Amino acid sequence: MSELRIGVIGAGNMGADHVLTLHRQVSGAEVVHVADLDKDRAARAAGAVPGARAGDDAFAVIEDPGVDAVVIASHDATHADLAVAAVRAGKPVLCEKPLAPTLQECVRVVREERRAGGGLISLGFMRRFDPGYADLRSALAGGSHGAPLLVRCASRGVSSAPGCTDELSITGSAIHEFDTVPWLLDSPVTEVSWHAPRSTGAVTGLRDPQLILLRTADGALSTVEVFLNAGYGYDIRCEVVAEHGTVALTDPARIVADSARVRSTGYPADWRPRFADAYRLELQAWVDAVRAGRVPPLADAHDGLVASAVAEAVITSMRGGGATVAVRIPEV
Amino acid sequence: MSELRIGVIGAGNMGADHVLTLHRQVSGAEVVHVADLDKDRAARAAGAVPGARAGDDAFAVIEDPGVDAVVIASHDATHADLAVAAVRAGKPVLCEKPLAPTLQECVRVVREERRAGGGLISLGFMRRFDPGYADLRSALAGGSHGAPLLVRCASRGVSSAPGCTDELSITGSAIHEFDTVPWLLDSPVTEVSWHAPRSTGAVTGLRDPQLILLRTADGALSTVEVFLNAGYGYDIRCEVVAEHGTVALTDPARIVADSARVRSTGYPADWRPRFADAYRLELQAWVDAVRAGRVPPLADAHDGLVASAVAEAVITSMRGGGATVAVRIPEV
Amino acid sequence: MSELRIGVIGAGNMGADHVLTLHRQVSGAEVVHVADLDKDRAARAAGAVPGARAGDDAFAVIEDPGVDAVVIASHDATHADLAVAAVRAGKPVLCEKPLAPTLQECVRVVREERRAGGGLISLGFMRRFDPGYADLRSALAGGSHGAPLLVRCASRGVSSAPGCTDELSITGSAIHEFDTVPWLLDSPVTEVSWHAPRSTGAVTGLRDPQLILLRTADGALSTVEVFLNAGYGYDIRCEVVAEHGTVALTDPARIVADSARVRSTGYPADWRPRFADAYRLELQAWVDAVRAGRVPPLADAHDGLVASAVAEAVITSMRGGGATVAVRIPEV
Amino acid sequence: MSELRIGVIGAGNMGADHVLTLHRQVSGAEVVHVADLDKDRAARAAGAVPGARAGDDAFAVIEDPGVDAVVIASHDATHADLAVAAVRAGKPVLCEKPLAPTLQECVRVVREERRAGGGLISLGFMRRFDPGYADLRSALAGGSHGAPLLVRCASRGVSSAPGCTDELSITGSAIHEFDTVPWLLDSPVTEVSWHAPRSTGAVTGLRDPQLILLRTADGALSTVEVFLNAGYGYDIRCEVVAEHGTVALTDPARIVADSARVRSTGYPADWRPRFADAYRLELQAWVDAVRAGRVPPLADAHDGLVASAVAEAVITSMRGGGATVAVRIPEV
Repeated sequence: MSELRIGVIGAGNMGADHVLTLHRQVSGAEVVHVADLDKDRAARAAGAVPGARAGDDAFAVIEDPGVDAVVIASHDATHADLAVAAVRAGKPVLCEKPLAPTLQECVRVVREERRAGGGLISLGFMRRFDPGYADLRSALAGGSHGAPLLVRCASRGVSSAPGCTDELSITGSAIHEFDTVPWLLDSPVTEVSWHAPRSTGAVTGLRDPQLILLRTADGALSTVEVFLNAGYGYDIRCEVVAEHGTVALTDPARIVADSARVRSTGYPADWRPRFADAYRLELQAWVDAVRAGRVPPLADAHDGLVASAVAEAVITSMRGGGATVAVRIPEV
Repeated sequence: MSELRIGVIGAGNMGADHVLTLHRQVSGAEVVHVADLDKDRAARAAGAVPGARAGDDAFAVIEDPGVDAVVIASHDATHADLAVAAVRAGKPVLCEKPLAPTLQECVRVVREERRAGGGLISLGFMRRFDPGYADLRSALAGGSHGAPLLVRCASRGVSSAPGCTDELSITGSAIHEFDTVPWLLDSPVTEVSWHAPRSTGAVTGLRDPQLILLRTADGALSTVEVFLNAGYGYDIRCEVVAEHGTVALTDPARIVADSARVRSTGYPADWRPRFADAYRLELQAWVDAVRAGRVPPLADAHDGLVASAVAEAVITSMRGGGATVAVRIPEV
Repeated sequence: MSELRIGVIGAGNMGADHVLTLHRQVSGAEVVHVADLDKDRAARAAGAVPGARAGDDAFAVIEDPGVDAVVIASHDATHADLAVAAVRAGKPVLCEKPLAPTLQECVRVVREERRAGGGLISLGFMRRFDPGYADLRSALAGGSHGAPLLVRCASRGVSSAPGCTDELSITGSAIHEFDTVPWLLDSPVTEVSWHAPRSTGAVTGLRDPQLILLRTADGALSTVEVFLNAGYGYDIRCEVVAEHGTVALTDPARIVADSARVRSTGYPADWRPRFADAYRLELQAWVDAVRAGRVPPLADAHDGLVASAVAEAVITSMRGGGATVAVRIPEV
Repeated sequence: MSELRIGVIGAGNMGADHVLTLHRQVSGAEVVHVADLDKDRAARAAGAVPGARAGDDAFAVIEDPGVDAVVIASHDATHADLAVAAVRAGKPVLCEKPLAPTLQECVRVVREERRAGGGLISLGFMRRFDPGYADLRSALAGGSHGAPLLVRCASRGVSSAPGCTDELSITGSAIHEFDTVPWLLDSPVTEVSWHAPRSTGAVTGLRDPQLILLRTADGALSTVEVFLNAGYGYDIRCEVVAEHGTVALTDPARIVADSARVRSTGYPADWRPRFADAYRLELQAWVDAVRAGRVPPLADAHDGLVASAVAEAVITSMRGGGATVAVRIPEV
């Protein structure tokens, strides 16, 4: 079975990381073409892979006959059109989240994919491949803990990206939990409400932190804290409280130090060290499935649409002063 | 300075524990009189203390000229009348929470105490004396963490007492957090809302767990989980998320064991081992202050009234389907 | 039963702490007389207790007819003579470790006590009352872990006292483990050897850290690390590896903080916060037993002699280049 | 750059794992030939890789012109001859530890490799690639902790393999620490002594646990506990105590559960889950270097010889009743 020849669209942090991971740590894949609006950036990313082409035309990557499958890591606003183009070209595509910035566009993408027969679009909800989250899900599926009742999630970062807004905190960050929670519980989010304390003084013009309540069809209630300017480190937590006990992620630090009156473990500065393994395993699982002609075991386009529908409901609640809002999943 | 002669009203678990703690571990105090409706139970508790009288008349304890100060650990419904009687007798009293089952009665007690000059009633919110909570409060007061933004509390137990109701979960258990959160933040609760997932199958006729949102005057938002039938153990958690970092209680277990494929620490079956030290320190602080003629550094009657006002607002929210309810503190 | 009237000899850190603990936190006891060579120091310590006398004559404390029992916390070199004087006066005595600086003097004290009928001398090996160590011992006694095979102890401090020597590290610090290990295992130390890496640059003229191997009669092997200038904090560790699993002390910190890229718990600067509870519980147990006419459940004079015999063997090994040395317990 | 074609010799647990890891998770490599004395076992392992040949002739793998590089995971007794054959064939080889069962054979292999120009043999001391150990080493190299003084290692397993002997505990298990400790400290082991408590009743005919003291040239002292029948789980610990603080491996569990009165994390049953990532990273680093024509950043043949020299000294100490034995590194 020959190597999967991959084109990567977008050579920012995420795209360049994917190029390196695919090249250096994933079996059975090779990056052959990298495109970015900034052609130099594309060239720098492609430079790590002997023989890889660089360009500034995303559609040229999709149409490249030497490209078997496509990774989309360009600006969120481009995801929908590129995913649709890949689907039309009949090429499997791994699209970074979100599937599209609006729910309406998500619907369009899902419809286009269905029309093409389905199974082509995977979505980069990489937490499903984080070994910690995977262990959580296995533990719950084992059933000995009884029915899950409460989930407590927190996503904290050092500082928000320039230009971040209250809505982008939801569609860009909290959206991970909108996928993870129903995936963990195996039950869709049906109702949400948005809440916030006073905001941190570390940033202006942003409600941060935010606290979201999610109700899933199974009757469980989840709290999702998103705190982009937590300052102290990149820190992801998740605890599931079930009828007979709880399961939770541990602190993933690998070493502990004693010095200057404290015992301490370190936090990374951003998400990349925390989820490096998740990205590697996700890419490997995607490559393996595509090469074998199987539908990849990743989140799919409809999962992306569903997460965006939850995000939309949360934003509606935010604008409505924290009212409870039902999640409406559009028919596709 | 002679020993403080103490009368204890109520010889159930809590009262009997107080008798033993006062007798065995508190300096400067002696239990001289114990009363319980069940006179045998009073006699058993008093039996641990050479020379202590036992009886079934609570008011006889208060009026006993050999009693300098009174501990009330009898049924909640009796607290108000007994506290008022002690105040009228001019005797310092440490009353177990709640001050009274209804807010109206709390008002009456506070007014009676003010009329008598104040400073006589202390309330048994013992968490203020738990070394962990005390460390949390000191850390926050230190200020290096910045302003508190979010607080996450969880109170979990093995099983609820017979006859427990949704309301008793609030007035009997969550009330601890209604005192602890504003004490930690140094800011009163102004607004609440009540939420709940599906209930555990471990019990019938009870909403369990419950999740309460508290908003304090400083703008912080707190979540209070109360899960009386969590099954796995008695477990109290508290994390405060502030602008520059967090502080949280640790697992208080003193030993860790490896066996049979697991690394484990133990949970107690109920609150007594968890808060034994808090009770001891609370009683010692009360005794020290009373002997020295100072107002005890415990929660006072008005703190008890305030916690009951928060509980009343939460129950209003519960009955109103989770609506946000403002906390109204009655004038006294 | 009236209060136990206690005389405290030595008003340095340890003695002054004992005065405060007895006065403020121990039930059934009162400090009535404090002596120190430095009379001002005695007066400062006694000043905390209304009515307590202060002086500079240790023997006057022992002979004071108003003193029922004596605590010895003066310089190590004085322990033996004072303990003997207390025994001759027929008064129960709690002597800080060591019983005496030399094994020969320990023998003398034990003989004097036996001659007086025994049961009068308790030794301040307070770790036996530390709740963590007590839990360890209970867990081992429970038997489910099987026979203990290895014990790993570490005693680390911030910095050594001025004038500390290699031998004082053994007789003043490691001696705690020479009592704790056989108490945990219920088996005496039979053979020792002394080892050391290069010393820390933090101090000159001292072998620090040191590593001691203890073999107990049950066949278990223990390593005892003593590192007085560990710098980072006061930190006591103990793990017992048994046939079916292990038990170990946890980090006793009560809160954990996140800030500046680390998750951390704090260490105390010295032993007092770490063992405050152990000292309180030890003093309470001693007072309770003396008042009740029972032999106190503390280490006794012979335990002190045995620990000193182990220390002597370790020093012999140190001087002999790390050779294995049998522990010889003198006949008494 | 084309894929590295790898032959794997030995298809037991270790060899079969390597085949799968190379095939599924390593970039730039493919397994093309697998040999095992048990041809069926070879076929089963090769069966996972489309196009891979299976056979029972190890030398045929080495001589196979379609094989670029060789992995040796066969019985320890075969390592030396196979490594020499690979060297003579001019093929890079990754040999599982030990390099050879005797020091004399290690010398022969190193000499043969030097004669062939060197740089061909890598040794499977995979702990150097474990992210935890790598973090430990980086932390120490950072220098802020000061000079390392003590190292405490423990390697515990569920049960020993059939036929395990006291010596095999050293040459098969403790040998990992004989490589890891000097690699962490960047200083060779110069002196050792062997010690043991009574043995566990879980096994007969084996001294288990064993405790080894290592002295390194830098003056640090290390204790290495090897307890193959610890029963409770596969558990690897390492703490380095330095002048200004300590660094240690954390518990690598990714989730923590509460149930039935305990808070727990799990232990794996054997080394494979614990070191799966280390093996993957080791194989990837080896493949990358071989493809690039660089000397692999793994332990090399001389490191293997040195570890075996330490093991030999430890066995000499064991047979000599625990005497201190100098490590003698043969000239090559």
